[in-house]
Amino acid sequence: MLVSALLTSLGINSGLCVLFFILYSILRKQPNNYEVYVPRLLAEGNSKRRSQFNLERLIPSAGWITRAWKLSEEEILSSSGLDAVVFMRVITFSLRVFSFAGIIGVFVLLPVNCKGTQLHEIDFADLSNNSLDVFTISNVNSGSKWLWIHFSAVYIVTIFICCLLYYEYKYISSKRIAYFYSSKPQPHQFTILVRGIPVSVGSSVSESVESFFTEFHPTTYLSHVVVRRTSKLRNLINEAKTSYNRLLHLQSKPSQQKCRRIGLFGQKVDLVDHYGKKLEDIEQNVRLEQSDVSLAEETRAAFVSFRSRYGAAVAFHLRQSINPTQWVTEEAPEPDDVYWPFFSSSFMRRWISKLVVVVACILLTILFLIPVVVVQGLTNLSQLETWFPFLKSFLTITFFSQVITGYLPSLILLLFLKIVPPIMEFLSSIQGYISHSYIEKSACNKVLWFTIWNIFFATVFSGSVLYQVSIFLEPKDIPAKLAVAVPAQASFFIAYVLTSGWTSTASELFRIIPFICSLVTRCCKRTNELEVPSIPYHRDIPRILFFGLLGITYFFLAPLILPFLLVYLCLAYIIFRNQFINVYMPKYETAGKFWPIVHNSMIFSLVLMHAIAIGIFTLKKLPMASTLVFPLPVLTLLFNEYCRKRFLPVFVAYSAEVLIKKDREEANNPEMAEFFDKLVTAYQDPALMPIQYSVNSDSLNSPLISAEV
Amino acid sequence: MLVSALLTSLGINSGLCVLFFILYSILRKQPNNYEVYVPRLLAEGNSKRRSQFNLERLIPSAGWITRAWKLSEEEILSSSGLDAVVFMRVITFSLRVFSFAGIIGVFVLLPVNCKGTQLHEIDFADLSNNSLDVFTISNVNSGSKWLWIHFSAVYIVTIFICCLLYYEYKYISSKRIAYFYSSKPQPHQFTILVRGIPVSVGSSVSESVESFFTEFHPTTYLSHVVVRRTSKLRNLINEAKTSYNRLLHLQSKPSQQKCRRIGLFGQKVDLVDHYGKKLEDIEQNVRLEQSDVSLAEETRAAFVSFRSRYGAAVAFHLRQSINPTQWVTEEAPEPDDVYWPFFSSSFMRRWISKLVVVVACILLTILFLIPVVVVQGLTNLSQLETWFPFLKSFLTITFFSQVITGYLPSLILLLFLKIVPPIMEFLSSIQGYISHSYIEKSACNKVLWFTIWNIFFATVFSGSVLYQVSIFLEPKDIPAKLAVAVPAQASFFIAYVLTSGWTSTASELFRIIPFICSLVTRCCKRTNELEVPSIPYHRDIPRILFFGLLGITYFFLAPLILPFLLVYLCLAYIIFRNQFINVYMPKYETAGKFWPIVHNSMIFSLVLMHAIAIGIFTLKKLPMASTLVFPLPVLTLLFNEYCRKRFLPVFVAYSAEVLIKKDREEANNPEMAEFFDKLVTAYQDPALMPIQYSVNSDSLNSPLISAEV
Repeated sequence: MLVSALLTSLGINSGLCVLFFILYSILRKQPNNYEVYVPRLLAEGNSKRRSQFNLERLIPSAGWITRAWKLSEEEILSSSGLDAVVFMRVITFSLRVFSFAGIIGVFVLLPVNCKGTQLHEIDFADLSNNSLDVFTISNVNSGSKWLWIHFSAVYIVTIFICCLLYYEYKYISSKRIAYFYSSKPQPHQFTILVRGIPVSVGSSVSESVESFFTEFHPTTYLSHVVVRRTSKLRNLINEAKTSYNRLLHLQSKPSQQKCRRIGLFGQKVDLVDHYGKKLEDIEQNVRLEQSDVSLAEETRAAFVSFRSRYGAAVAFHLRQSINPTQWVTEEAPEPDDVYWPFFSSSFMRRWISKLVVVVACILLTILFLIPVVVVQGLTNLSQLETWFPFLKSFLTITFFSQVITGYLPSLILLLFLKIVPPIMEFLSSIQGYISHSYIEKSACNKVLWFTIWNIFFATVFSGSVLYQVSIFLEPKDIPAKLAVAVPAQASFFIAYVLTSGWTSTASELFRIIPFICSLVTRCCKRTNELEVPSIPYHRDIPRILFFGLLGITYFFLAPLILPFLLVYLCLAYIIFRNQFINVYMPKYETAGKFWPIVHNSMIFSLVLMHAIAIGIFTLKKLPMASTLVFPLPVLTLLFNEYCRKRFLPVFVAYSAEVLIKKDREEANNPEMAEFFDKLVTAYQDPALMPIQYSVNSDSLNSPLISAEV
Repeated sequence: MLVSALLTSLGINSGLCVLFFILYSILRKQPNNYEVYVPRLLAEGNSKRRSQFNLERLIPSAGWITRAWKLSEEEILSSSGLDAVVFMRVITFSLRVFSFAGIIGVFVLLPVNCKGTQLHEIDFADLSNNSLDVFTISNVNSGSKWLWIHFSAVYIVTIFICCLLYYEYKYISSKRIAYFYSSKPQPHQFTILVRGIPVSVGSSVSESVESFFTEFHPTTYLSHVVVRRTSKLRNLINEAKTSYNRLLHLQSKPSQQKCRRIGLFGQKVDLVDHYGKKLEDIEQNVRLEQSDVSLAEETRAAFVSFRSRYGAAVAFHLRQSINPTQWVTEEAPEPDDVYWPFFSSSFMRRWISKLVVVVACILLTILFLIPVVVVQGLTNLSQLETWFPFLKSFLTITFFSQVITGYLPSLILLLFLKIVPPIMEFLSSIQGYISHSYIEKSACNKVLWFTIWNIFFATVFSGSVLYQVSIFLEPKDIPAKLAVAVPAQASFFIAYVLTSGWTSTASELFRIIPFICSLVTRCCKRTNELEVPSIPYHRDIPRILFFGLLGITYFFLAPLILPFLLVYLCLAYIIFRNQFINVYMPKYETAGKFWPIVHNSMIFSLVLMHAIAIGIFTLKKLPMASTLVFPLPVLTLLFNEYCRKRFLPVFVAYSAEVLIKKDREEANNPEMAEFFDKLVTAYQDPALMPIQYSVNSDSLNSPLISAEV
């Protein structure tokens, strides 16, 4: 790829970003779009809809940027929880790393690379006609002493990142404990989920739980709720809700539209009456079903609540039964966080579904190689011409060829990547996780490794040698092959940062899809329920981490990537802070459990970078440097092992000390009695709660919330 | 190797076995050898020394065989503990497996192999001149339909072994729990070891422990004992013991020998007085040092005892402190089982020593390749002749060449292998384990993998292609390479079973080394302390498991190995039972914790066998069979995963149910008060106990124990 192609891509993406920013600045002020751009403020009632028109509404403003900038960490913590803080710290962490690496890269490594003459001498007269390869390590002459500068850079940056990782892990674990100390009593702190409950003949699951826990945890056991199969019931309730919404919609229409013929020759009926009756029928069914379900269809699982956090922790940490597949305990999620549809209590079934999901992930990864290979064809124009000869004349036009090599490949990849997080979330959901938060954490991991494998490795190896996936079956050759293939893809990944990084972050601000959805639904709107979205961590964390991987692996190969990355991170920093204020509301709180994923990903990136460095120095005929890099991955892995021992347990469970202190603090709190009353019913399946739509169908059309931004 | 060479080896080894049996039968009846052959009976006082001579003592008898045969499992359990039962079950398990595989192998596979003509047709006229390869799968013609019989055998035997493994795991876990229920209260059940105790300025470790556990475990905490550095003290005590023994020895001599000049011109002194004074001096030192140590030199570790097993388990399972590297808990070993010399309380030091041990193991493995390669040279006579041309004339003599190819290689290997278990035990001991039992368990694992790697893989790959250790860096080629190399070594491993299996088991009965030691020390014997040995599980379990691996991998390649294996197992069955009655006394009780090692080793053997089968069927041009074997390793690994979930937790820790039931059972036991009194001091360092040798030096020469076999 030539510099000019990169400039084209830069132009397109910068233009798009500016466009998105301007559009956002204007559209967010329109009352119609409040639900898209400030749903959180609306829901919290902090925003009033201004109906009178004024000119200011049409002029883009940047006030929101300063507001986002000024937000402090404490504010994020109190408004969006610790997870949001951790998310923002991923960005600031990357910013610190790449500012440091950027200074070294741009001011030290880049000049060294340009000085080399291995590929071409740089043509200062016509900069834009230089190949981007001139700026990479490939251009440094083989055996040159200048490579020791790269070597030192690898060492310095690794040490810097490790130090930063250590302090960050320490900081977040202390935050996690502080968060726990400052939290109010919450049902999930006092509750565990028990699966695989054995039932003796003639007794129910509930009796079995009751007798087991009163026998073995007599002082701490409080109550339990048996989980029931309610999928049929949930369908009925959804049906009721739909009918209710339709009714609502009908009633808001002028009265002549409320009648319609039923069937071809049927008589005209009042539709409101018709749907009202239907709703009542469904509700009757629901009530019938509810009483049925509460009598039968118990699963062999229950939420068991205790009188103290420590009591719950003891029951969770100790294996309860002689048979390890019975009375399997697990920490309970928050009541709102429980994910009911795929609930399974049997040990074997969960185990098998886990296996199925693993196989599905592997299949998905293999199938995804197809679009990646196609995309890679686009970056190699000559290959494309041999595949589709009729394109030859078209491709000679500079602008088209530049768009195709510089912009199109990343865009196609980006679109395909869009569908991955939902698929992974679905796969995680059938894997047997009990809560949204576990599902997202697992999906986050899946998406991360999928991205690394399918974008990084597939691009690197299919771009240079097609279909070389079997490369990993010969582990000792990996560094050498990486050294050849990775630098060759530098220009693709720089373009990828531009497209996927810049534009998609800007489109996150603009919220294209919700905006279009709101445009579509506005005309046939049925409800005035406002759904405040929560941030999809499993989509955004892997993306940032993948850019981190690109930055770490390429910083000494092609330092030109760093300024683009820094711009991306600055954009992300401002935009996500803004979204936390205006858009996203936390749905659950894992109290920082996403950080270990971040840490692992960074360690992996470092080790990958070291492997490439070993390969590169061998390739560049500097075997001494290659040998001296070798201790680095070993030390990095040891550092990781130490961190696993030192910090990871904090993220797995709270310690006895913390739990007991917190319990004692609240021992004399008069509010606890009330809390325990609520705790007893906190884990009732929402499908078993009484529903009542039909009666208050007269009192519909609740007044629109008045909002102002 | 020719059949005749095998017969030579068979002859030598059978001869040796018979010789050992006869010698044992005679020697065990001589009162002088009681300490070698029946130390356990002596120690228990079940055996009286008969001094009068009678002729029967010189006639070999086989009574001990029937006595060993008749021993029931309950008797072993009550006399030698659950570990001995598990050990015997390893042998009976192998016997069952190889009886089943043996029937298939000898009556079905062997005829099929002999029918083949790929290598040579079998020469029935002169059986002993046939190469052993005629009896292996290599002789079956490529692409032959007969190979499907081997294919079926692989499936049937795998299923049989997996079923047996499942029932065995189940049986032993139930035994383990029954053993716990029936056990008396023991100190280690109520105690945990805490390391990494943080100490605030101005307070001692003891105060720190006291305040922490009274704060967080007020109802269950009983007492604690801080671990102290006593290596200097231990040296002094050993010195005192040596002096005491010398004194003892002197006093038993006639009085004229008791005087000697001290120095060249010194006056004659009474040596008894001299040593007596010296002993008193040392004892004075010991007492001084003991008071010193008990004032200072506390390590940051302590044994903490609780009032109930459940209390101890709760403290063990829950992380105690916010900082995961502080208050690190671990199950306490039995008081006698504690291994004091390498005790280390610091998290970092233990971690580093673990790393050092890993590196040491790798180095040892690499260095050990040298003798293995030399040994392999011996089996390839032609290679040996090219290396040492002067041997040519010597090697033409049939008997020498047969001894060299059939017997010498295994013998050399065997001698080198003898030194491995002690080395591994030493490495495990510096790894930071706190007890003999953990050290042996870890050493058992190390020896097992060392044996598999250095005997199996090194022999297989160096025999066919020298120095092919790098083979494992190309994992996809492993089956093909195994398929070529493994059958080629069949004759070596058959010989290995004869030498290492038969002879070394028979020599275990004969106890060569203790016998020689007793001969040497008898003349200059100083003590009449009787040390009853304990069975070195880390030496014997890996050996049996390695034969298991050989049997499982070779049963369809060279079924001829199975009869020899069966004879070995029968020998081991009788001999070890006999040794449990007469020789070994249990030193500690892990309650069956060795079984998971056995299970894992069997699973590994199965998967290895499947890999070889895949390779063999490809090599033999039966790709269909090769493909159909593929699900087998996957299913085996899944089965293993299931067993890990279903049974392994039972071997890691007891469940709450078991612990609470056991605690309640004893709640009203009046003996418990006395037990708790003892518990408080159970974990005192023996070096800190008061010693007293000098005073009762007059009452030495305790009468010899009168014993009768």
